[in-house]
Amino acid sequence: MELWYTEKQTERFGITAKIKRTLHTEQTDFQRLDVIETEEFGNMLVLDGMVMTTEKDEFVYHEMVAHVPLFTHPNPKHVLVVGGGDGGVIREVLKHPSVEKAVLVEIDGKVIEYSKKYLPSIAGDLDDPRVDVQVDDGFMHIAKSENEYDVIMVDSTEPVGPAAKLFERGFYEGISKALKEDGIFVAQTDNPWFKADLITQVNRDVKEIFPVTRLYTANIPTYPSGLWTFTIGSKKHDPLKVEEDRFHEIDTKYYTKELHTAAFALPKFVRDLVK
Amino acid sequence: MELWYTEKQTERFGITAKIKRTLHTEQTDFQRLDVIETEEFGNMLVLDGMVMTTEKDEFVYHEMVAHVPLFTHPNPKHVLVVGGGDGGVIREVLKHPSVEKAVLVEIDGKVIEYSKKYLPSIAGDLDDPRVDVQVDDGFMHIAKSENEYDVIMVDSTEPVGPAAKLFERGFYEGISKALKEDGIFVAQTDNPWFKADLITQVNRDVKEIFPVTRLYTANIPTYPSGLWTFTIGSKKHDPLKVEEDRFHEIDTKYYTKELHTAAFALPKFVRDLVK
Repeated sequence: MELWYTEKQTERFGITAKIKRTLHTEQTDFQRLDVIETEEFGNMLVLDGMVMTTEKDEFVYHEMVAHVPLFTHPNPKHVLVVGGGDGGVIREVLKHPSVEKAVLVEIDGKVIEYSKKYLPSIAGDLDDPRVDVQVDDGFMHIAKSENEYDVIMVDSTEPVGPAAKLFERGFYEGISKALKEDGIFVAQTDNPWFKADLITQVNRDVKEIFPVTRLYTANIPTYPSGLWTFTIGSKKHDPLKVEEDRFHEIDTKYYTKELHTAAFALPKFVRDLVK
Repeated sequence: MELWYTEKQTERFGITAKIKRTLHTEQTDFQRLDVIETEEFGNMLVLDGMVMTTEKDEFVYHEMVAHVPLFTHPNPKHVLVVGGGDGGVIREVLKHPSVEKAVLVEIDGKVIEYSKKYLPSIAGDLDDPRVDVQVDDGFMHIAKSENEYDVIMVDSTEPVGPAAKLFERGFYEGISKALKEDGIFVAQTDNPWFKADLITQVNRDVKEIFPVTRLYTANIPTYPSGLWTFTIGSKKHDPLKVEEDRFHEIDTKYYTKELHTAAFALPKFVRDLVK
């Protein structure tokens, strides 16, 4: 018997992956959660029918969300991850020796539970003593935080369901307040082929709040179009003006210090979205 | 009725696209040729079951094959395209005013015929007076050429069927002979997620023949993994040492002079393939 999982990434286009079996399926309080074992990408976490992460290509997203802002900030000590219950961003954050405390605020405890069970290579560092895992609403956590974090990473699902309000201007204002005076944040902002308007809208909102706003990209095979964007808002430090000696050795599979800069060189049609 | 076209890009992973209708299907002397009208990507050319090009994303491949070597060479006059019967690379080549003659050698005349019919925005410049279209075997054309071309672009299908010999060391030796003393060539070399060995092998072969060997990437949504690689072999000019004043204004949707350089900053796992 052949089993294939197909995600329609748009109404008109999708990916399809041969699977060995379903490992878990559940309607949580927030979303439909599936974990499947695929032949090409290993174990795969699917939320509301959308691929969140896979064992084979997860390193791209997690490294690029974490290391670009963390190397941009000269001395990140206090870090917040909003969402990211699979633990991949936390794993990368902990590679930075300056980090004293990393708070993870994930709204859906089931994501954490099943990531630990079925994606141990991703979620394995959630029990590190520097990590404070809170099952809570990231929007509310941001709203009550003030002058607290050096770096905030928004590792959300798409702007539907529980994550919709994480793409609103008010959320970015809250992030600005939650950051220290030289703080920096990054959010995943989908892809330019099918979601161009979202990128433009987020960029416009962030620009109105943060003096330094930048867009960068990375290649993620299991995400729509294979080209993912990340939007940075920074109060002071510019990811394109990192001192050479700031970069330290780090164990990665995608990120390099050359790519740190090159990732901001946008294809022309993407650059035009954020002019 | 819903019609979906699915390409298994590997035995275990693929893409699927909703289509309006098939426009043409034929077994040519060389391969199976299909043209379909998709909802997301417009008209799509499929050879032997693999997506070759689509109206929506074709510009990435064609611009990145053409402009990187053409801006690297200081004065490209005589250009050869091996394969590329859809005409997209030729369209980009003709944007360079220095080019006096562009030869296209496509083994399958049917590709040219149906590209002109169903992909006019791509194939429209094949009738330009500077273009010499030859329906012939590119391997043989290279074998009998000597000291003739400034830039050669290998716009082939995958290394199966008619294109298999275009990935062999003997072919690159022929290219070296066909190039002038400061000539440069580029070949598409598939993706690093599913075809890592091919990239390593081509890089090793090209390095033994050309003093300057470089790998660069571009994002193509309808190609496997969304991340495509291109291998450059150059007798003299280095794509990473292009004089600033060499770049002239050019009408593109993907290529920029910043991306010209940034495209060579490889993800670490890709860089490791060509160490």
